[in-house]
Amino acid sequence: MLGKFQVRTDLALEAREICEETGESRTNANEPIRGVRVDEDVDEEREIYTTTVTIETENAAKTMGKPVGTYITLEAPNLSTPDEDYHREISEELAKHLSHLIGGGRESVLVVGLGNREVTPDALGPDVVNNLRITRHMIREYGRMPDEMETAAEVSAIVPGVMAQTGMETLEIIRGVVEETKPHLVIAIDALAARSTKRLNRTIQVTDTGINPGSGVGNHRDAINEETLGVPVIAVGVPTVVDAATIVNDTMEELIAEMDRSEYFQMLGGTLGTLDYAEKHEMIHELISPSLNTMFVTPKDIDETVKCLSYTISEAINIALHAMQA
Amino acid sequence: MLGKFQVRTDLALEAREICEETGESRTNANEPIRGVRVDEDVDEEREIYTTTVTIETENAAKTMGKPVGTYITLEAPNLSTPDEDYHREISEELAKHLSHLIGGGRESVLVVGLGNREVTPDALGPDVVNNLRITRHMIREYGRMPDEMETAAEVSAIVPGVMAQTGMETLEIIRGVVEETKPHLVIAIDALAARSTKRLNRTIQVTDTGINPGSGVGNHRDAINEETLGVPVIAVGVPTVVDAATIVNDTMEELIAEMDRSEYFQMLGGTLGTLDYAEKHEMIHELISPSLNTMFVTPKDIDETVKCLSYTISEAINIALHAMQA
Amino acid sequence: MLGKFQVRTDLALEAREICEETGESRTNANEPIRGVRVDEDVDEEREIYTTTVTIETENAAKTMGKPVGTYITLEAPNLSTPDEDYHREISEELAKHLSHLIGGGRESVLVVGLGNREVTPDALGPDVVNNLRITRHMIREYGRMPDEMETAAEVSAIVPGVMAQTGMETLEIIRGVVEETKPHLVIAIDALAARSTKRLNRTIQVTDTGINPGSGVGNHRDAINEETLGVPVIAVGVPTVVDAATIVNDTMEELIAEMDRSEYFQMLGGTLGTLDYAEKHEMIHELISPSLNTMFVTPKDIDETVKCLSYTISEAINIALHAMQA
Amino acid sequence: MLGKFQVRTDLALEAREICEETGESRTNANEPIRGVRVDEDVDEEREIYTTTVTIETENAAKTMGKPVGTYITLEAPNLSTPDEDYHREISEELAKHLSHLIGGGRESVLVVGLGNREVTPDALGPDVVNNLRITRHMIREYGRMPDEMETAAEVSAIVPGVMAQTGMETLEIIRGVVEETKPHLVIAIDALAARSTKRLNRTIQVTDTGINPGSGVGNHRDAINEETLGVPVIAVGVPTVVDAATIVNDTMEELIAEMDRSEYFQMLGGTLGTLDYAEKHEMIHELISPSLNTMFVTPKDIDETVKCLSYTISEAINIALHAMQA
Repeated sequence: MLGKFQVRTDLALEAREICEETGESRTNANEPIRGVRVDEDVDEEREIYTTTVTIETENAAKTMGKPVGTYITLEAPNLSTPDEDYHREISEELAKHLSHLIGGGRESVLVVGLGNREVTPDALGPDVVNNLRITRHMIREYGRMPDEMETAAEVSAIVPGVMAQTGMETLEIIRGVVEETKPHLVIAIDALAARSTKRLNRTIQVTDTGINPGSGVGNHRDAINEETLGVPVIAVGVPTVVDAATIVNDTMEELIAEMDRSEYFQMLGGTLGTLDYAEKHEMIHELISPSLNTMFVTPKDIDETVKCLSYTISEAINIALHAMQA
Repeated sequence: MLGKFQVRTDLALEAREICEETGESRTNANEPIRGVRVDEDVDEEREIYTTTVTIETENAAKTMGKPVGTYITLEAPNLSTPDEDYHREISEELAKHLSHLIGGGRESVLVVGLGNREVTPDALGPDVVNNLRITRHMIREYGRMPDEMETAAEVSAIVPGVMAQTGMETLEIIRGVVEETKPHLVIAIDALAARSTKRLNRTIQVTDTGINPGSGVGNHRDAINEETLGVPVIAVGVPTVVDAATIVNDTMEELIAEMDRSEYFQMLGGTLGTLDYAEKHEMIHELISPSLNTMFVTPKDIDETVKCLSYTISEAINIALHAMQA
Repeated sequence: MLGKFQVRTDLALEAREICEETGESRTNANEPIRGVRVDEDVDEEREIYTTTVTIETENAAKTMGKPVGTYITLEAPNLSTPDEDYHREISEELAKHLSHLIGGGRESVLVVGLGNREVTPDALGPDVVNNLRITRHMIREYGRMPDEMETAAEVSAIVPGVMAQTGMETLEIIRGVVEETKPHLVIAIDALAARSTKRLNRTIQVTDTGINPGSGVGNHRDAINEETLGVPVIAVGVPTVVDAATIVNDTMEELIAEMDRSEYFQMLGGTLGTLDYAEKHEMIHELISPSLNTMFVTPKDIDETVKCLSYTISEAINIALHAMQA
Repeated sequence: MLGKFQVRTDLALEAREICEETGESRTNANEPIRGVRVDEDVDEEREIYTTTVTIETENAAKTMGKPVGTYITLEAPNLSTPDEDYHREISEELAKHLSHLIGGGRESVLVVGLGNREVTPDALGPDVVNNLRITRHMIREYGRMPDEMETAAEVSAIVPGVMAQTGMETLEIIRGVVEETKPHLVIAIDALAARSTKRLNRTIQVTDTGINPGSGVGNHRDAINEETLGVPVIAVGVPTVVDAATIVNDTMEELIAEMDRSEYFQMLGGTLGTLDYAEKHEMIHELISPSLNTMFVTPKDIDETVKCLSYTISEAINIALHAMQA
C-alpha cells in the first residue's frame, strides 16, 4: 500500500517486501516484521528457490494485507521453458509442499480451476483442471484399485467460469458444489497478479489460506476459504499478469527516486524529497489513466507459458493426490 | 423399444412413431395412442413444421417412455444452412414457444449448457451458453434498465461439464448451484440422440419436462427436472447424433423386411416372417458389436452445424428472456 | 519517434499526432505535415468518426514512418458493446470503405487471418476468418449462383499462425499460398498496437498499403504488401494492445511535463526543461525494464471485445465481397 | 471392395484382409497376395503388435488399392489409456520406425497437421502439431545448439485446415509452402478411417507413401505424396472413425452370412447363397441411406483418446527429429 494507490500483489513474498520498504509499522525498516516468519531454502543444482512466509498473528496479517497462514513460494527461472525432465522435478517439489499442507485424512478433494479460459493469462486454472486425473466417479462406481487402496483421494474438479460468463459469484457456484458433494478439501488454482514483472511466470505460490479478495486478474469477489466454504482450502497460484496501473506507478516512483539522486537536483539545492509525500503521489495518480485500472500487462509468449505451467501444476496435484497418506 | 434392444431416441416425435409402429399397447396399430395428443402446424412459406406432442396421462407416459408434459418440435430443413435472416425467423418462432412454456413471473433464470465442449456434436449446450446475454450480476449491481423494468429476467448460466471431466454427476453440480442461487426456472440445453439420421440437425425440441435418463450422447445420469431440482426445468435440445447400435439395428430390420417382400423368398414358399420375432432379433443383436454401444454416428460437417444451431438457440433464449412478461 | 525509444503505433492517425507533437521536420509544429492529406467525417447520429489519412509523397511517408497510401480509420465508442443492430451499421460502413479500396475486377480474394489464436488480443485475425463466408471451392465446383453471377468474389482464407508455432515467417506461408492459388487480391486482418489505451478496441483501420514491419503484437517479420506478394494487399486492423514499454514511457513523459509546470520547480528557479532532452530520455529509458519490451497491455474483458470486433469485421468483408462490382 | 459399394479403409493392414477375404485376384483365397510382403512382430511384454506390409509391385498396389511402399502398423490395446510411462514406450517405438523411414540427410522437415480442428476425431493432426518442438526459426537465427550440432532437424509445421474453412485444396496450401520453404521431407499427420471399429484408436500406421485419395474423414482431395510435392512424404495416421455406411454394410453382410448358416434356411431347402451376389448387394445398398455417406462413427470418449494419441505421436516425432542421424 503506497499512498492512496493500492499496489496489487497476490504474492506474500512481495507483500513482505513492500512492507519492509515502507516500514510503516516498525521503527526500523530493516527489522523483520513482527509475527511474520520467513524461511528460505536454495537448491542450487536445480535452481529452485523456496521461501516459506508464515504469518503468525492477526497484527502481522493486518500489516501484510494477507490472512494468517503459510505461504510457500517456489521460484525457478526456467519454469516456463519447455523441458520435460525439469518440469517433472518441479512437479515433484511442488507435490511435496502440497502433501505437507494437505496433511492426512483427506479422502476426497475438489479441485477448482478459477479464471477465464478465454483470456490467455487467466486460463491457468481451467488448463490445470484439463490435465488432472479425475477419479471420484470411478472410485464411487468401482472402488479403489488394490494398489492404491489407502492412498488415492477421490478427485473431482470444476471450472466455474467468471462472473461475466455466469452472472454468478464464483463463490456461489463453488459453495453450491461443495455443499452438494461434500469434499474434505478444496484445492483452488488461480492466475495471480504480481507487483513486478520479474516474478511473472517463474513463481508458484502455495498457501493454506485459500483465495482472498483482490486475487487473480481482478474479477474475483468474495474470499474462497475455509470460512466461506466450511472445508479447508489450499490455493495454488502463479503470477501471470501485473496490473497496468501498478507497473506505471512503480516506474514513476523509481523515476522520482532517481531524480532525487541526480546531480542536477543536488545542484539546484533542492530535492523532490522535499515535496510532500502525498503531493508527490497525487501527481502520479493524476497521471495514471483510469482506464489502466481495467488493464493488465502480460508477456507476448503467454500462451506457451501458461501451457507449460499448467502442465507442471496438474502433474504436482496428480502426484500429491494419488499417493496421499490416508 | 424393439425386442431386447433399446432404441435410443430423445425425441417425443420419434417415440410416438415407434409406439405406433409396434402398436404394443393398442389393439389397432393405426389408432392414436390413448393419452397422447398431437397437434401439427405447417408454415409452408418458411418451411417450418411444428408438432406439439402432449403426454397427458401416466399410462401414456409409460407407453411413450417419456414423462407427462408438452413436447414442441420445430422441424426446418434448412436449420443448419448459414442464412442469417432465416435463423432470425427460427429464433423468433422458438422464442414464442419458450415464452409460452415459461409462462409469467420467472424473474430469474439459470441456463445450463449440458454436454462436453470437447466433443463437437455434444458441444451444443456449452456453445449456446457462450452466446447468451448474461444479466444477473448486472441487474443485481445496477438494477434493471428503465426500458426493461418489468420484462427482463435475471439470466445466469453454467456449463457443468461431463462426469469424465468433473468426477461428479451433472445433477450434483446443478443442484448445488440452484440451491445456492435460487433461480425461479432452469433452462437446460442439450445435444440429443435421434433414432433416424433424417432428423439430425434439422429439428429442435422444447419441453417442460426437463432432461430425463438416457438423453444426450449417453453420459447423463439422473434426471434434471422439477422433481430433482425443486424448480421447473425447460429443456431445449437438437438431435446431433444417432447411436451407432441404433443405426445398425434399424438397417437390419429393414433388410429383413425387404427380404420378406422379395420374390425369392416367396418362391421358396417361406418367409422370414415365419421366424419367431424374438429369434430374429436375437440374430441381429448378436451381430451388433458391443463396442457399438459406446459409439455414435454424426455428419462430417457437424462443426458448422453446431455453430449455426447454437447461435439460433442463444438468440431465441435472449429474445424470450429479455422481453418476458413479468 | 521520441529519442532512442521507438514508440509503437500501427495507426496512421496516431503516427500523425506524434509527428505533429514533435514537429521535427517542420518549422512550425502546428502546421500540417506536407504530403499528408487528412479528411474527417463525423456521423453524429451513429457516433462514427471517420478519418482518412492519405500519405501522398515518399517524404511524407518517411516522416510518418508509414508507406504512401490511404489509411481510413473508423472510430466508434461503442464498437465493443454487444449490440447487434449497431454492429450491422458499422459492418456496412466498413464494407463501403473496403469496396472503395478494393475497386473493380477482383474476382478472387484470399483473406489472411494474421496473429496467434492462442493469445486473446492477437486472435482477432483468426477469429475473423472463422466467421467468413468461404466460396472459392463452391464456385469452382458448381459455378456462381444465378443471383450473384457478376458480383460475388471467389473467397478463400488462411490462418497461417505465428513463427513460434510454425517455424516459418508468416510471409513465406502467404507467398507460397498466393503463388499456388493466384488470387487477385489479399485482405489481411491483424490485431494492432496503439500508442494510447484510449483507442483500444474502438478503432478500425483499413489501408491499401498492406501490413508493414512493426505491426501487430510485435511478432511479424517482413512486410505483407503488393511488393512482397505481387498482388494488392488491403489490411484491416484493430488496436487491441499497447506495448507495455510505450505506456510506461508515455506516462513518464507526462510526469516530467507536469513537474515542469509545478509551482515547486518554478520556486526552485529551475525546471526539468533545463535538463538536456537526451539526458532526460536516457533517465527514462534506463528505468524501463527490458522485460517490458516483450510485454503488452490489454483490457481484462479482451475476450468479449475480440469476439464482438471479429464478428463485425467478418460481416463487413462478407458484405463487401459478395456484392462486389465486377 | 465389395460389389459396387466402396469399403473405406486407410489401413494397409485392413486392405490386405479385405483382399484375402474376397480373394478376387487369386485362385486360392488363402494364398498370400503376390507382391505383398508381410512381417509380423509381437512384443508380448509391452503388448505391442507390429505389422509391416510392403507393397512391392504395381500389380499388388492395384489389388490392394494402395501405392507401392512400406506400411508399418503398431497395434497396442492400451494406446488411448492415459498412462504416461506406457506412452513414452510407444513414442520411442514409433520414433524408431519413423527414423528408419526417414533415413539420413533430412536436415529440414515440414510437419503437416491435416484435418479439421473443430471436429474432435479429425483434430488429431492439428493437435499433434500443437505439441511439436518447432525449431526452424531458432536454428536459422541462432544456429544449432552445440549438443545437437549434427543431429537435430530444422522443424517447421503447418495446420492447413480443411476445404470448407479455406476454400482451397489442402494440397494447394502445402505445395505453396513447400515450394517457398524447401524442406527436405514432409511428415503428414492425419486421422484415418478404418473398416472395423475394433481397430479404432489402438492402431498407428506409418508409411512412406504419403496421403492418398480417400484418406481421412473423407474430405481430402488430391494425394499428398512425393509425386505431387516433389519431396518425400511420410504419413502417420490413426484410425479414429469408421464410415457410417461401411459399418452398416458390414453388419448386413454378416447378417446374410449368419442366415445362410441358420437351420431355418437349411430347412427351407434353399439358402440366401443362391441369391445372386450382385442382387444381394443391391438389396443392401438400397437400404443404406445416402445420408450415411456423409456420416462417420466414433466413440463417445473420442476427446480423451485424441488428446492421448496426439501427445504420443508428437513425442515420437520430437524424438525422431531431434536425434536424427545427419
